[in-house]
Amino acid sequence: MSGSITGKNIQISTWGESHGKALGVVVDGFPAGMEINEEDIQKFLDRRKPGTSPATTPRKEDDLVEILSGVFEGKTTGTPISMMVRNTSQKSSDYSEIAQYYRPGHADYGFDAKYGFRDYRGGGRSSGRETIGRVAAGALCSKLLSQMGIEVTAYTRAIGSVEIDYSKFDKASILANPTAMPDSDADKKAMELIQQARANEDSIGGIIECVIKGVPAGVGEPVFDKLDACLSKAVMSIGAVKAVEIGDGTLVSTYHGSDNNDSFTINDGVVSKETNHSGGILGGISDGTDIIVRAYVKPTPSIARTQHTINKSGENIDINIHGRHDPVVVPRAVVVVETMCAHTILDLMISNISAQASNIVNFYNHK
Amino acid sequence: MSGSITGKNIQISTWGESHGKALGVVVDGFPAGMEINEEDIQKFLDRRKPGTSPATTPRKEDDLVEILSGVFEGKTTGTPISMMVRNTSQKSSDYSEIAQYYRPGHADYGFDAKYGFRDYRGGGRSSGRETIGRVAAGALCSKLLSQMGIEVTAYTRAIGSVEIDYSKFDKASILANPTAMPDSDADKKAMELIQQARANEDSIGGIIECVIKGVPAGVGEPVFDKLDACLSKAVMSIGAVKAVEIGDGTLVSTYHGSDNNDSFTINDGVVSKETNHSGGILGGISDGTDIIVRAYVKPTPSIARTQHTINKSGENIDINIHGRHDPVVVPRAVVVVETMCAHTILDLMISNISAQASNIVNFYNHK
Amino acid sequence: MSGSITGKNIQISTWGESHGKALGVVVDGFPAGMEINEEDIQKFLDRRKPGTSPATTPRKEDDLVEILSGVFEGKTTGTPISMMVRNTSQKSSDYSEIAQYYRPGHADYGFDAKYGFRDYRGGGRSSGRETIGRVAAGALCSKLLSQMGIEVTAYTRAIGSVEIDYSKFDKASILANPTAMPDSDADKKAMELIQQARANEDSIGGIIECVIKGVPAGVGEPVFDKLDACLSKAVMSIGAVKAVEIGDGTLVSTYHGSDNNDSFTINDGVVSKETNHSGGILGGISDGTDIIVRAYVKPTPSIARTQHTINKSGENIDINIHGRHDPVVVPRAVVVVETMCAHTILDLMISNISAQASNIVNFYNHK
Amino acid sequence: MSGSITGKNIQISTWGESHGKALGVVVDGFPAGMEINEEDIQKFLDRRKPGTSPATTPRKEDDLVEILSGVFEGKTTGTPISMMVRNTSQKSSDYSEIAQYYRPGHADYGFDAKYGFRDYRGGGRSSGRETIGRVAAGALCSKLLSQMGIEVTAYTRAIGSVEIDYSKFDKASILANPTAMPDSDADKKAMELIQQARANEDSIGGIIECVIKGVPAGVGEPVFDKLDACLSKAVMSIGAVKAVEIGDGTLVSTYHGSDNNDSFTINDGVVSKETNHSGGILGGISDGTDIIVRAYVKPTPSIARTQHTINKSGENIDINIHGRHDPVVVPRAVVVVETMCAHTILDLMISNISAQASNIVNFYNHK
Repeated sequence: MSGSITGKNIQISTWGESHGKALGVVVDGFPAGMEINEEDIQKFLDRRKPGTSPATTPRKEDDLVEILSGVFEGKTTGTPISMMVRNTSQKSSDYSEIAQYYRPGHADYGFDAKYGFRDYRGGGRSSGRETIGRVAAGALCSKLLSQMGIEVTAYTRAIGSVEIDYSKFDKASILANPTAMPDSDADKKAMELIQQARANEDSIGGIIECVIKGVPAGVGEPVFDKLDACLSKAVMSIGAVKAVEIGDGTLVSTYHGSDNNDSFTINDGVVSKETNHSGGILGGISDGTDIIVRAYVKPTPSIARTQHTINKSGENIDINIHGRHDPVVVPRAVVVVETMCAHTILDLMISNISAQASNIVNFYNHK
Repeated sequence: MSGSITGKNIQISTWGESHGKALGVVVDGFPAGMEINEEDIQKFLDRRKPGTSPATTPRKEDDLVEILSGVFEGKTTGTPISMMVRNTSQKSSDYSEIAQYYRPGHADYGFDAKYGFRDYRGGGRSSGRETIGRVAAGALCSKLLSQMGIEVTAYTRAIGSVEIDYSKFDKASILANPTAMPDSDADKKAMELIQQARANEDSIGGIIECVIKGVPAGVGEPVFDKLDACLSKAVMSIGAVKAVEIGDGTLVSTYHGSDNNDSFTINDGVVSKETNHSGGILGGISDGTDIIVRAYVKPTPSIARTQHTINKSGENIDINIHGRHDPVVVPRAVVVVETMCAHTILDLMISNISAQASNIVNFYNHK
Repeated sequence: MSGSITGKNIQISTWGESHGKALGVVVDGFPAGMEINEEDIQKFLDRRKPGTSPATTPRKEDDLVEILSGVFEGKTTGTPISMMVRNTSQKSSDYSEIAQYYRPGHADYGFDAKYGFRDYRGGGRSSGRETIGRVAAGALCSKLLSQMGIEVTAYTRAIGSVEIDYSKFDKASILANPTAMPDSDADKKAMELIQQARANEDSIGGIIECVIKGVPAGVGEPVFDKLDACLSKAVMSIGAVKAVEIGDGTLVSTYHGSDNNDSFTINDGVVSKETNHSGGILGGISDGTDIIVRAYVKPTPSIARTQHTINKSGENIDINIHGRHDPVVVPRAVVVVETMCAHTILDLMISNISAQASNIVNFYNHK
Repeated sequence: MSGSITGKNIQISTWGESHGKALGVVVDGFPAGMEINEEDIQKFLDRRKPGTSPATTPRKEDDLVEILSGVFEGKTTGTPISMMVRNTSQKSSDYSEIAQYYRPGHADYGFDAKYGFRDYRGGGRSSGRETIGRVAAGALCSKLLSQMGIEVTAYTRAIGSVEIDYSKFDKASILANPTAMPDSDADKKAMELIQQARANEDSIGGIIECVIKGVPAGVGEPVFDKLDACLSKAVMSIGAVKAVEIGDGTLVSTYHGSDNNDSFTINDGVVSKETNHSGGILGGISDGTDIIVRAYVKPTPSIARTQHTINKSGENIDINIHGRHDPVVVPRAVVVVETMCAHTILDLMISNISAQASNIVNFYNHK
């Protein structure tokens, strides 16, 4: 109930604080027989690794994953997969001041109100490091999805006012560019914006987009567990996200129905839609076209310039937050959005298998 | 798992199709001892009743609620509260054509892909009538919240391009205006837009805003069940919603940290924030200030003009949807957003009571 | 969280009090496309109907079920199936005294301690009538199981000291005999015992046995959701059950390993076991042989003779409970045990479909 | 859904295989502010440690626990508590033969049917070592319960035919005696029986009893999550348990109501019962008296003598299981029963806090 577990079929339970001994995840319900090794997971974790460019904190975190259970002879066994990353580079001394006051834009005040005290070192449980567990779990899901021809791809769509130009879209550059933008020109401009923000002792926000190709029609539940509702929760649960949209999203509020409706069409027996305003989801159920999710990410709340706040003694004070912070959260959060979407999609696809009585009867009668 | 149940402490289970015998909800886990009667519920249901203005379908639906269980001598008993509304005005003959094709912008195609067939009458389970159960359940939650000084208020913020002017904000007019706008001038303009859309055999979208006052700091869970994540899921699970945002929402992507951070401040021992860009939630936990949620609603997909689509035989066809449809979903969805938010807030507030060991120990030791 | 919902894939939500307006159940997640009608359900409900023999209360309850949603053109739609039985014969006047005191052997005292007050009419929510919802839901599950060749059969194994003789086992007589015993000689003796108990203003207990044939090996989860753990919870959640056992059950505590181990053996490619001490479950997972569950049922706590207890004013008093009570719960509870087992088995069989990654990949790749 | 997670408020997620790198548990939802250290946990784990007497396997397992998260400055933080025990003494070579066949009395056959293959080393996930996570989690729960004056005590009631004599009950001797019997005379006789079984290349079963003192009336939910139903599931989910009973348990099937009903009585304002046949639970809700749970444990299935079974090639074979096995599971399982009961009780006590609306309103209004 403290909400560090998510999922219906594949249940992810993340644990760990920024400056504790370790962070990790237990994945319960992942199906048996998929080949997996630590490199498969590490590849995803490395995408959220800092210290690789001026877009991130200069802090070094190796974040090497260890699989502790649930894999035998190179394959998942169907039993819980426990994965752990030891904390190594964390210096708690950086954070002694923070214990005494409530940083603007952070959960410090809420944590103290809720629990009576908090692990104040590096944000404790609300640190971005918590997402290590999510990414490790989602990496498993991505691998299984790829075996069904489903590709989940997230990238940076915008940093501040710099947006990508879709005519220059180059998927390969997502991993290569420090901003995780699929457009190298935009990437360069965005990097300038980021460095300018840092120079101003400030930070900046942006937009992450995730496109999921290959999901068949029929995935998602009709009421509370709509595919878009589940994706929204998954994405909004990532620390700095303040808005989530599907397809044309906020724009639909100004559309007429005749603009917004996508016509179904069939060519050589293949059903498609003439447009995709819906972002691949109608009435909470996938319609067989690309699923498009967008997350709006706030600027990093930890900034170097002087800020006003209150302390635990109930006094108004001015503070200067020290430490090594990302001037922008977006590039490192791209893989988090991608893996959260991967988990959500796979999880609902598994439920979907038993939507028809005949599927169940056939499974057992042909066994 | 088919996702018609939601909630952690107060579990809502809605049931019923647009043209079935009845629709309803079972509310499990609602605490004992709250006074309630059918009028308390009916008041909320009447806010989603159609036929009251040109902004809605001329269809008449009385939608009288009957409480079947869980209330004794005028008070909730702590056991499941079952509430039902009989369907009376539904004419299935209107929908015979729809069985054969897939309406653009509707879940018809996804339903058939998922279940092999569908109850095609009036949208079946994906009808807006499904929200009857949600509203009835949320009415209970609103009442209990009000006993703690918490007020959940939703209203129409925009219809198409017509936005409300906050300087004219008049709470009382929300229930009086056909658009559910708190600004009667905007309401008039919006009504023109709606009638114009209807005259053009078209429909229009809009924005619903929900403000929750009085929630103390500390509500919401730090990771997957963040307060904003749960609110997003609750709101995105409402049929026509395509985007959800908290506080400044999508705007934060272009902000700098120095713009977006809200300074905490204290006056006469009362903690507040100098601004509320965060919409009352930081790191997924309430910060004690107003919680602000916004839903972007698409235009009604059922429009009278000719549309292109495919039929069940896999042919491209043109269709004309008949029947009595709302030219805009927004006004009737306002109470749905409000009650879904009420349920989400109360549900997380209940979890929160056991966040500290001392609360549990004190509860039992003082018993 | 108030625990009136159970199930992982097929979630059953029962509601209703003994003397409220109605009782019912919402079944969420039942797969689409199974033929069902009200007679299929009524047949099961009739097995718990009283007034048919001296073994039950002379109270008449017709308990006619109405399907309100989730079935269209004679088939389940995959959306929630709501079923209701109106209360008709209940006379609240019978129960006015009970409001003032705590009946021995009943939950009255616990209810007041928990909720502050209770619906005292006929046991309210803890009445045996609550099982109407369970039986209706389980009837659906039994039907789907039968399509996979799985047969769930419960019967009375003992009333007081009268046990059935397996050499006289006649399945057909379960439904015919008033005790639900599959042995007509034992039935006659048991009926004498029951009438003697009633004559003595007393009641009597017994044992219900449930045998499930046809479940393949591999059903059940290895740790907390073991098949036997889930069956135990399902059966122990029935009002008067005080012990549950699987296979040889309590006897194993005195066995040696060499007595208790069942040897696997293979004949013409068919795997079986030479004995079935395990009751078809090993390590929480079905082993492909008959599953055997036993419930030990206490005597009806409502008896006519004078009893000592306390009242709400905290006084020691003597009471005489009036009203029309079953002298034995067992015969009417047989169908409840059977349907709870049917639900549990089907629910875990559905989870099991996604135990192997290749099943998921094949399902979607062959779609 | 693979069922390695249990609990409503405090969710326990165990992971790890007998011969993997480590075993552990993540405890989500444990309330903040309770003092805890590794010794508190180790004390419980040591009670399931083997190698301490002829009643257990001579295998040495140190099983030192490491707390990885969720504790800060000596107190629980309210966030997930991750605890791990590294595997050190496991020799996989012992188990090479077992990969090829299905041991009688074990889950091997079910595992292969379910998952397509299994981690055959030492039972893999179905090893008794899985309970390390349960015990570590339950140790936390026991500590919090003790702060509310609730004492959970399990002990061996019988080994084979040797039962304890309650007139010799000595609580202190539970931890001292190798059988975990609270009666040293019975312990000696039982030890003889165990050694005899071992000498015969055999094993033996027994009974574990758990008494929970101090739980107030009102704990447990009225329908599916009855206190006894939840206890049954928790206890039956322990590997070798084949029957669970509450209070007089199986005996009630032969009682009359007049024997079985416990009269409530009041003395100096204190409510009690004249007898406790019900084992402290009526209608699924605690009645304020001692809660009594009993688990019937089968003899260890791994025995040295020759047994018949089948191999993976579908042949009938004779096998001799080598390795170091417990001749009796009971003494080491006592602490597992105790901690599973502690978790279940605490979990339901937390739900109970919000059973009355006034408790919620008061909590927030007095904040």
